[in-house]
Amino acid sequence: MQAIVIREPGGPDVLEMRDIPVPQPARGEVRVRVYATAVNRADLLQRCGLYPAPPGFPADIPGMEIAGEVVALGADVTDVAIGDRVFGIVGGGGYAEQIVVHARTLAPMPAKMAFFEAAAVPEAFITAWDALIDQCHLAAGDVLLVHAAGSGVGTAAAQIARAIGARVIGTVRTAAKADRLREMGIEESIVVAQGRFADEVLARTHGRGADVVAELVGGSYVAEDMACLAAGGRIVAIGTMGGSRCEMNLSLLMTKRAEIRGTMLRARPLEEKIMAARVLQRRIVPLLERQILRPVIDRVLSLAQASEAHARLESGETFGKVVLEI
Amino acid sequence: MQAIVIREPGGPDVLEMRDIPVPQPARGEVRVRVYATAVNRADLLQRCGLYPAPPGFPADIPGMEIAGEVVALGADVTDVAIGDRVFGIVGGGGYAEQIVVHARTLAPMPAKMAFFEAAAVPEAFITAWDALIDQCHLAAGDVLLVHAAGSGVGTAAAQIARAIGARVIGTVRTAAKADRLREMGIEESIVVAQGRFADEVLARTHGRGADVVAELVGGSYVAEDMACLAAGGRIVAIGTMGGSRCEMNLSLLMTKRAEIRGTMLRARPLEEKIMAARVLQRRIVPLLERQILRPVIDRVLSLAQASEAHARLESGETFGKVVLEI
Repeated sequence: MQAIVIREPGGPDVLEMRDIPVPQPARGEVRVRVYATAVNRADLLQRCGLYPAPPGFPADIPGMEIAGEVVALGADVTDVAIGDRVFGIVGGGGYAEQIVVHARTLAPMPAKMAFFEAAAVPEAFITAWDALIDQCHLAAGDVLLVHAAGSGVGTAAAQIARAIGARVIGTVRTAAKADRLREMGIEESIVVAQGRFADEVLARTHGRGADVVAELVGGSYVAEDMACLAAGGRIVAIGTMGGSRCEMNLSLLMTKRAEIRGTMLRARPLEEKIMAARVLQRRIVPLLERQILRPVIDRVLSLAQASEAHARLESGETFGKVVLEI
Repeated sequence: MQAIVIREPGGPDVLEMRDIPVPQPARGEVRVRVYATAVNRADLLQRCGLYPAPPGFPADIPGMEIAGEVVALGADVTDVAIGDRVFGIVGGGGYAEQIVVHARTLAPMPAKMAFFEAAAVPEAFITAWDALIDQCHLAAGDVLLVHAAGSGVGTAAAQIARAIGARVIGTVRTAAKADRLREMGIEESIVVAQGRFADEVLARTHGRGADVVAELVGGSYVAEDMACLAAGGRIVAIGTMGGSRCEMNLSLLMTKRAEIRGTMLRARPLEEKIMAARVLQRRIVPLLERQILRPVIDRVLSLAQASEAHARLESGETFGKVVLEI
């Protein structure tokens, strides 16, 4: 089968198509014919040699989410059948025609959804749901501040917050991205200049601030988050495009009785990845089927264009996900 | 009645005894004859002009916890009767012969406990229980790292953790305090030199680290906490004796899926202070009555010795609480 392999740590051109053996499913596992995958920032880090795949997944094939069809079953698989259209997160190896995964880490695809659309869902929507709802207890009436609101996770977070009755304020870096957010019904956004947004968030919330912050930028944004966080507010660090070091004022954290937490799907053990698949199946798919949530796709390329796809995500100009069809 | 008043912001000598009017209880409130109060670091800050009392409490009388007897009832008080021996946290005004508080913010004192012992309980034990159990979900099998383990909150945190089946590692600054901890049955402590403890915590936990950290020092301790925090670990900032600024590594926070939160009792609204009194009554008092928890008292002084009591706490040499009898 064909797969994209990282030849050596480096730029987008180290991704090359190779012919590799088809993997075989063991007990409890299934093999999926992957029809689409999508590009994540973690793939870029892995390509640069900065983010090794967890044990049990191919070390040199990127790709953390898939949509496809079940083509072979290992022993004792009863939840999934050959021919099922499935999607989900994987620890790596998504940039390939076929992949072997534990059957229970998959979820049935929404009816009528194309593979290229389904591949844009798992990482973004599971990450956002898990971080906002399950970890930060975002609820109706809360104000969510979401940074990099035009990113895959950002667009997912904004939609999820809206779906459950929270108010969304997104930050973006360009007016064009604010327009794109408005087109998808996210009316309130701030085009951030010189890294400042706290005063604007406070002004728009009559001094109360944000209850939850989806922190996809990091670095100096965190001090601004703290300045415009409501009492009892929660910041969840999901990405660090703007740097991973920040200053923290513990007295302010105490006065606001605030919390900051970090989250990551990839490092989780099997049981939590299975739980993530249940979140996808029971919480996200129903909202996708009712079109309350929609994957946002920047562009669809072919697997052979993986280098171009990586360069595109690195450009910072994407709005939504970059998908690879296989 | 007699009360200690902060004459002006300054050192311990700005505390002076004054004769002030006896306050009257309004609807839902009671007046308590205070027989003992205790000194908290927040009192020292308030005395220096750095920590104003919340609205509804005297601006210039320190004291955030009391033990005493109910002597007068406002209208519609049914939960508390005249003569009841009660204790609890208050927003301020504890350094006085009498105080008016909402009836439901009080809890019945443990049977057989003296007032001077009871006054050493509320702030330390409610703070520790709320932070560790209710906020950080400390549970049997977890490892708790508690800094300033000889402080009022530190000794309470260590005892609570032990009571629920968690393993406790305390840090202290002197061997003498480690000895005192051992005498109260807290066997594992680290005498911190040059602010380092992470390697020692990792060594003692076979590389796994601490599940929960009670952070009473702050400053540079937080980076060490992060270095020896287990995956999924929680740091709760309760005090900042060592400084309130710290560096945070968001990537590490994400990789460990860790959380850091700040906590404070005083800033809470009435409903949460009432909930705190229920924690005291339903969780802490039963363990005090069975002597599984015991208040740790550094020394007992009289209200007239408030200046001396403040100087004692500021010395950093206390082990447990400094109590004032009235």
